[in-house]
Amino acid sequence: MLCIRRHIPLSPLRQTSSPINWKSLRFLATFKPAEPLTIRDINQHTVEAKYAVRGKIPIIADGLQDLIHNNPESHGLPFSKIVNANIGNPQQLEQRPLTWYRQVLSILQYPDVLKSNHNYPKDVVTRAETILKSIGSVGAYSHSQGAQLFRKSIADFIAKRDGYPANPSNLFLTSGASTAVSYLLQILSADENSGFLIPIPQYPLYTATIALNNAKPIGYYLDEHNHWSTNPEEIRELIEKNKANGVNIKALVVINPGNPTGSILSPQDMIELIDIAAEYGLVLIADEVYQENIFKGKFVSFKRILSELLESEPETYKNVQLASLHSTSKGVSGECGQRGGYMELVGFKPEVKDIVFKLASINLCSVVSGQALMELMINPPKEGDESYELYKKETGSIHNDLETRADLLYHAFLEMEDIKCNKPMGAMYIFPTLEFSPEKYHKLFSRAKNSDLQIDDIYCIELLEHTGICCVPGNGFGQKEGTFHLRTTFLPPGKEWIDRWTDFHKAFVNKYKD
Amino acid sequence: MLCIRRHIPLSPLRQTSSPINWKSLRFLATFKPAEPLTIRDINQHTVEAKYAVRGKIPIIADGLQDLIHNNPESHGLPFSKIVNANIGNPQQLEQRPLTWYRQVLSILQYPDVLKSNHNYPKDVVTRAETILKSIGSVGAYSHSQGAQLFRKSIADFIAKRDGYPANPSNLFLTSGASTAVSYLLQILSADENSGFLIPIPQYPLYTATIALNNAKPIGYYLDEHNHWSTNPEEIRELIEKNKANGVNIKALVVINPGNPTGSILSPQDMIELIDIAAEYGLVLIADEVYQENIFKGKFVSFKRILSELLESEPETYKNVQLASLHSTSKGVSGECGQRGGYMELVGFKPEVKDIVFKLASINLCSVVSGQALMELMINPPKEGDESYELYKKETGSIHNDLETRADLLYHAFLEMEDIKCNKPMGAMYIFPTLEFSPEKYHKLFSRAKNSDLQIDDIYCIELLEHTGICCVPGNGFGQKEGTFHLRTTFLPPGKEWIDRWTDFHKAFVNKYKD
Repeated sequence: MLCIRRHIPLSPLRQTSSPINWKSLRFLATFKPAEPLTIRDINQHTVEAKYAVRGKIPIIADGLQDLIHNNPESHGLPFSKIVNANIGNPQQLEQRPLTWYRQVLSILQYPDVLKSNHNYPKDVVTRAETILKSIGSVGAYSHSQGAQLFRKSIADFIAKRDGYPANPSNLFLTSGASTAVSYLLQILSADENSGFLIPIPQYPLYTATIALNNAKPIGYYLDEHNHWSTNPEEIRELIEKNKANGVNIKALVVINPGNPTGSILSPQDMIELIDIAAEYGLVLIADEVYQENIFKGKFVSFKRILSELLESEPETYKNVQLASLHSTSKGVSGECGQRGGYMELVGFKPEVKDIVFKLASINLCSVVSGQALMELMINPPKEGDESYELYKKETGSIHNDLETRADLLYHAFLEMEDIKCNKPMGAMYIFPTLEFSPEKYHKLFSRAKNSDLQIDDIYCIELLEHTGICCVPGNGFGQKEGTFHLRTTFLPPGKEWIDRWTDFHKAFVNKYKD
Repeated sequence: MLCIRRHIPLSPLRQTSSPINWKSLRFLATFKPAEPLTIRDINQHTVEAKYAVRGKIPIIADGLQDLIHNNPESHGLPFSKIVNANIGNPQQLEQRPLTWYRQVLSILQYPDVLKSNHNYPKDVVTRAETILKSIGSVGAYSHSQGAQLFRKSIADFIAKRDGYPANPSNLFLTSGASTAVSYLLQILSADENSGFLIPIPQYPLYTATIALNNAKPIGYYLDEHNHWSTNPEEIRELIEKNKANGVNIKALVVINPGNPTGSILSPQDMIELIDIAAEYGLVLIADEVYQENIFKGKFVSFKRILSELLESEPETYKNVQLASLHSTSKGVSGECGQRGGYMELVGFKPEVKDIVFKLASINLCSVVSGQALMELMINPPKEGDESYELYKKETGSIHNDLETRADLLYHAFLEMEDIKCNKPMGAMYIFPTLEFSPEKYHKLFSRAKNSDLQIDDIYCIELLEHTGICCVPGNGFGQKEGTFHLRTTFLPPGKEWIDRWTDFHKAFVNKYKD
């Protein structure tokens, strides 16, 4: 039968576009077709991985958004748009991109624009020309680690930030920080007994990626009552306990400034964490993507503290393996869609760094315009440059907006009955506690009992359904047994959405309070 | 000791930037520091994965490039630049980007450019405005599958290309085709007995990704003596044989037009492959990134043939699961660094598609400017549009250049002693055979025997060392036992590099021929 099917009168080169009349074939396939794959037939780790930031509730929100979009007049909802407070996506929430970034990027995309009259500032043109001279075109693959020029520039930025040198050959340009996390966790997941210490609450990218690699997440709690600080004794106990159970912990993940907590670690907490990494040979994964989002004082990086410790106690710290992550998606940049980021590896054996290089090579390279954006972010206009004043004005006002919005929302939460939260020190999020007790909120708890929903799920779903505000239940990030939180960004502009939230909260409390 | 270290006089909010004087600490760490990780401590699948396109020989080439760059006058090499024929990277090899793409992208990056006088064509401005109206900013995260507007537009392109409709909800925008391959292979790798049928020779992204997922590559040979066509009987035998050995084959990978072979499958070969997918319930992964790179006739997609088969024999083909991949990196676009691509999923159960969606969500979204580029590529200016003539002229000349260069190189190979190769029909590569026999090239084979190098390794290394031309040995793609090939792109401009290759080849043959 097959041999007859192979006699269809088409030469190997006759690539016609007019439909081929299969019906003219007298012989048809006789085999019994197989069934399509079900989720039971595929990689169960991909089935089990969870990612709340774009999970259950954001998916409901997408549905409501479509409903509004398709029935602008007749959607029947008590609100006319979704407020996406579930994800740190500033430019979706009306934050304007920085002129400096976008002017240079527009020239990189279309250098011929300089051949006609244009009114780009001198320093914009010079920077674009410098970049193009070095990389040729943003349309060409770069070196797997990222273009040499950008890595040199990032190394200078780190040296200036920390007061200690950085080596361009230790730098990997990545698509946001997510790619860096995925490389590191994949490489460190030696087998199903490989464990990763992650903060609770955490950014769910970590639990999701750990699940994909069939490794073990080991949660260490941040102390909500002490600015979400870390407890080294607890972490040491976790390491020993897991070792005893045959779990081989590979890395200690730290998110500073904190996501979802919005808190900042003290230098002494950071020293303790470095000590733990040094003593147990753990890779310290420092997720520092919010390093620009600090309201008071200046950012202190793990690289700087490690460098200072190395200076005073080289023998103790010479083997510490630090991976520090940065991104163009956060800060005052907020260029999430441009997918820029970098990772600095310190103290890794070259043979292990070669494996990171190989993974980067398999993906060819990170988007080159995103690499350029990282350069523009860490090497901005200097005083005296034509773009400087505007850059300063724009970054200043974004920084102020963020602080003002954080403050507005924080004070609104303070006013809400049975909600407690820490004053946000940085990042883009607040992670308030819903202090709903089974005694006082009996109706709420019995509703939860009769559904597969948790208390914080119910709160976030009703918040979405009544106000269009989309945030994420604390259980998506991890929280102490019997406590309930939610994560919201403070990015949405204006006070109107906060007032709606306040009204909703009153109604919710009245509805469920006994 | 630790408790004393925790008494360093710094308040949680004192984030000073002046160096902290650790030497003033009277108590130092007393623990014994652990050793750093070696490659024995990490994920062995990441250690074993191989990726020749950026492997051994390209890494030597990078070293030589640096040598030339750092010693322009005194590098002492017989050539002054590396010709990167190891990777399809047109814009690194002087191919100019299309004006249409870059003009729209430059406006997307800096919309304010339209506020000043500019001379962008009308249709460029209109397209940019349409895109911005729909997505807001290229700096915002898009929907995990890619922006709605782009998916609708791609669906129209597919419908027009194939004569059969496509559903935007089946489309996923990706960072080039590599991300799509990594999602699919990760999801389909249920356990270490999951197998993937891949062509030999293949693009090493497949073997590398299969290794990373601890699955089994099952190579089926392409018939070099018949335009690298496929042999369905051999594939069926492989499936049965592996089934008997407990290997559960999940997918059949087809690269058409072929990489590294530069060949094109006949519709009847494609029918046979679809039959196999239908009969055994395999996902058909159709890597069609070179669909624009065809010298004769018109591209026929697997989606179109499957659609026509479905029309005539719905019961037989209704369960066929097809994943078709496309990219902005190849074609006449060659925008490798912009990382645009898409994947269309047909016939997948929704529950499985949801898992693909989740993986895409964990990565947040593919770069939005790359998504826009995909839209510009599949929805170009139409006759009558202001940009049309220039677009037609530029694409036409790139297409002709590619064909001319392919032809030049092909004829050069025909002239070379003991080299055979098929006439390239498409893609960007030629995969000639080095017909060196142990009898005639005794010296060469004994040299290989006394090293860990294979015949094709030796040829490519000496080619690089004598001419600066970097290509990839056939063993990086897979080849029949006892045969030796190399893959080279035909992208480098001019004839001078080909003449150098010809001279090198003569010398190589004389050196090793007995």
